Amino acid sequence: MSPDRLDTTFAALSDATRRAILARLVSGETSVTELAQPFDMSLPAISKHLKVLERAGLIVRGREAQWRPCRLEAGPLKDAAAWLEHYRRFWEQSFDRLDTYLRELKRKGRKHGRKK
Amino acid sequence: MSPDRLDTTFAALSDATRRAILARLVSGETSVTELAQPFDMSLPAISKHLKVLERAGLIVRGREAQWRPCRLEAGPLKDAAAWLEHYRRFWEQSFDRLDTYLRELKRKGRKHGRKK
Repeated sequence: MSPDRLDTTFAALSDATRRAILARLVSGETSVTELAQPFDMSLPAISKHLKVLERAGLIVRGREAQWRPCRLEAGPLKDAAAWLEHYRRFWEQSFDRLDTYLRELKRKGRKHGRKK
Repeated sequence: MSPDRLDTTFAALSDATRRAILARLVSGETSVTELAQPFDMSLPAISKHLKVLERAGLIVRGREAQWRPCRLEAGPLKDAAAWLEHYRRFWEQSFDRLDTYLRELKRKGRKHGRKK
């Protein structure tokens, strides 16, 4: 995947409304009107978000003139996840460090308890 | 994690230079000058990117006035990966569909071969 493509994917995901639209599409193809319902937004505002998602290849829209349902396309999400995967050992390390620290605290707490 | 925090994380990741900076920090704490070396960019330009990464909590900078080394902080990456994880079954499904399609093509190809 080209760096540009990842730029577009991450930029499209950097908005809570767009992420909520993707979450809504998990349950299947949906019309723009239906997508707009849960949001306090005008149809043009939602359409703008859909265009960003479409350009990022995260959704595909049907060709029917009247009803252009949106469908989730997960390919770019897979590539974003693959990029993040390289850093897994770092967040697991941080967790290990926290775990060691908490166990140390507990051990000290027990020692302290015995002294009483 | 709040939606705002994910906004900031994904926005910070939507730039190839910032992703390259994070990749560089995988090998350990690094000074700004060292970080700037592989890029054809001025120190102020790199500093601007570092500020975005710092605000997103993706890096932490040392307190020494002269040498303020940057360190990777993977916590926000973990949360971004957790968000993406919800969509895994979609990209795996797409792969399954492609796999079925290719096997179907192969099967048809064999049938065609026998007819000759």
